[in-house]
Amino acid sequence: MKVVITGGTGFIGFRLAKRLLELGALTGPSGAPTPIDAMTLFDAVAPATRPDGLDPRARIVTGDIADRATVAALIDRDDIAVFHLASVVSGGAEQDFDLGMRVNLDGHLHLLEALRARKSRPRIVFASSGAVFGGDAMPAVVTDQTKQNPQTTYGMTKAIGELLINDYSRKGFVDGRSARLPTVIIRPGKPNKAASSFASGMFREPLAGIDFALPVSPETRHPVAGYRTVVEGFVRLHELPAEKLGTDRAIGFPSIQMQVGQAIEALKRVAGPRKLGKITLAPDPFIERIVAGWATDSAAERALALGLPRDGGIEEIIRAYIEDYAPA
Amino acid sequence: MKVVITGGTGFIGFRLAKRLLELGALTGPSGAPTPIDAMTLFDAVAPATRPDGLDPRARIVTGDIADRATVAALIDRDDIAVFHLASVVSGGAEQDFDLGMRVNLDGHLHLLEALRARKSRPRIVFASSGAVFGGDAMPAVVTDQTKQNPQTTYGMTKAIGELLINDYSRKGFVDGRSARLPTVIIRPGKPNKAASSFASGMFREPLAGIDFALPVSPETRHPVAGYRTVVEGFVRLHELPAEKLGTDRAIGFPSIQMQVGQAIEALKRVAGPRKLGKITLAPDPFIERIVAGWATDSAAERALALGLPRDGGIEEIIRAYIEDYAPA
Repeated sequence: MKVVITGGTGFIGFRLAKRLLELGALTGPSGAPTPIDAMTLFDAVAPATRPDGLDPRARIVTGDIADRATVAALIDRDDIAVFHLASVVSGGAEQDFDLGMRVNLDGHLHLLEALRARKSRPRIVFASSGAVFGGDAMPAVVTDQTKQNPQTTYGMTKAIGELLINDYSRKGFVDGRSARLPTVIIRPGKPNKAASSFASGMFREPLAGIDFALPVSPETRHPVAGYRTVVEGFVRLHELPAEKLGTDRAIGFPSIQMQVGQAIEALKRVAGPRKLGKITLAPDPFIERIVAGWATDSAAERALALGLPRDGGIEEIIRAYIEDYAPA
Repeated sequence: MKVVITGGTGFIGFRLAKRLLELGALTGPSGAPTPIDAMTLFDAVAPATRPDGLDPRARIVTGDIADRATVAALIDRDDIAVFHLASVVSGGAEQDFDLGMRVNLDGHLHLLEALRARKSRPRIVFASSGAVFGGDAMPAVVTDQTKQNPQTTYGMTKAIGELLINDYSRKGFVDGRSARLPTVIIRPGKPNKAASSFASGMFREPLAGIDFALPVSPETRHPVAGYRTVVEGFVRLHELPAEKLGTDRAIGFPSIQMQVGQAIEALKRVAGPRKLGKITLAPDPFIERIVAGWATDSAAERALALGLPRDGGIEEIIRAYIEDYAPA
C-alpha cells in the first residue's frame, strides 16, 4: 500500500514517515496488514536537500494543497492511507485568514473528496488541535465531550475538520480518525508562527546555549505531549478498528499539563552541567492573548482506554529531545 | 437599509419577510434603527405567482446560492442585513450529499465572503438546527454547551455554519448570530424532505380532513417550536447588541418537548367538532433512524435570558395554525 503524509517534510511528518517505514506495514483498506511499498511526503515547500537516512520508498512532492487537481494526483491508488498533518498554524492563520481557510479547509475537503473517489474507504488520520476549544464558557479541563468554541481561525478550521472526518466516515466515504493534539514539544530547528512555539523554544534555545525571550508568564499552564508519544499515537490511531471509535472519531490525545515555570526548573535539573542560554521574561500580548484562550489542561480517558500512549512527565520529554537532537 | 432573506420564498422566510416589512426598520450596520427600503427574497425556485399581500419593497430573486457571483450580486449595499434560511434539509442532504455540501457549506461561505467584502460588518442571522447534536454520547437534554456530534450531513453543515459565523464575527468581518432551531411546526402546504416533516404533517393533514401515516412511534419525544415564536425569535436575535452574545454567537432557541402521542390527543381537543383525518401508524425506518439520532429535549436558559420567546404549549401552537391556515 501507499502512505501519503501531508506536511510530510515538517518535523512530525518526517518523524512519522521514518517510523512507518521502520514498521513496514499498516492495516490497508482491505482490513489486513499490508506492506508499505510507496510513500509520498507532500508539503508546500521541499527541504533544500533530501533528508539523511530517508528510505528510497519515500518520495517528496511539493504543491498547493488548496489545488484540487494536485491533491487528486496524490491519491492515485485504492490501497492508500493518509496522515493529514499539513496546516497553516495558529499565529499564521490569525495573520492571514484567507490562507488559513484555503489550506486548512479547502485542502482538507480536497483530500476527503480524492479519497472518496477511490471508493476503497481508505483510512485518513487528521491532525486536529486543542485549539478547537476556547471561549467564555470553556471548562478548566477539556475532554472529548467539551463544546468546541474555538477563538482562532486555526482552531475553527480544525473543529470543522473533525466534523468533516466524522461525516465522511459515517457516509462510508473514508475511514477517518482525528487526532486532537495538545501542543507537541520539543520541536527542533527554528521557531514557527504557532502561538505555542514558545513551548518548544523555551527548552530548545537554552539547550543550544542561546538566550530565550519567554513571551508568556511562568504561571502559564498548558497541555503538551512529547513528539515520540504523538508519533506513536498517530500510528496506533490509524491501526484501531473503526468499530472502537463509535460516532465521534475525534480523539483527544493524552497530554501532560506543563506549568512553564516548573518546566524551566525541570530543564535545569535535566541539563545537569550543560551551560544553558538564559531565559528572560518578554511578554508578547499577541501570543498571550491567543494562549490565554486555550484550555489549561485536557483529560483523555477515551484515548487512554483505546490504548493511545501518554508521556511520563516533562523531564522524560526533555531527555528524549536531548538524546535525539542535542547530544552532549 | 436592505434585507436579504435566503430561502425567502419558503414558509418561514416569507412569514419573516412580512413581519420585517410590518416592523419597517431594523438595527443597521451603523448601530441605529434604520428603515427597510428594500428586501430581496432569494430562493432556488420562485413561487408560480407573486404571493398575495407581499409589500412592493420585496423583490423575489431566484438563483443558485452555491454560485459565488450570484450571491455577491445579492449583497450590493453596505447597509444590509441577511437572514440566511436557505438549506438542503435533513432527509434531502442524506439522499444527496453533494447537493447538501454545495448549498449548505459553499452557499454559506459565499454569503459570509460577500458580506465581508462590504466592510460595513453587516448583521447576519443564520438558521442552524438541533440536528447539530447526536451520537452515542449525547445527553438527554441538549444545551448551548453540548458537544456537537451530528449524525446527518445536514447537521454537520449546520455545525460548521455556526463555527463560521462565530469566527467571521470574531474577526470583525460580519456581526453574525446563529439561531439553533428546534423543529418548527406546523408547516402548511406539502410535506418536505426533512426527516422532521411528520411533526407538521401529523397536525396539518388531519386538520385538512386527510388521513396521515405517522412514520414514527407515538412515544417519540422531540423539541419543537411554533413558527410565530421562531419568526419573533429571529427578529429579536437580529436586534440583540453583539456584546450580549459573548464568544459563542450560536443560541439554542427555546423549545417545548412534544410527545407525539400526547400531541395527537391535544389536536383532538383543540379541533373540537371538526372532522379530523385519521392518523395511522406506519413506521418508516429511514425517518426513524434519523429522528432516533436527535435529542429528545433541549434547554435554552441562555436564549430565555437574552429575551427570546418560547411557546406556551402544543395547544397554543395548534390554535395558531388553525387561525392562520385552517379557519373553520
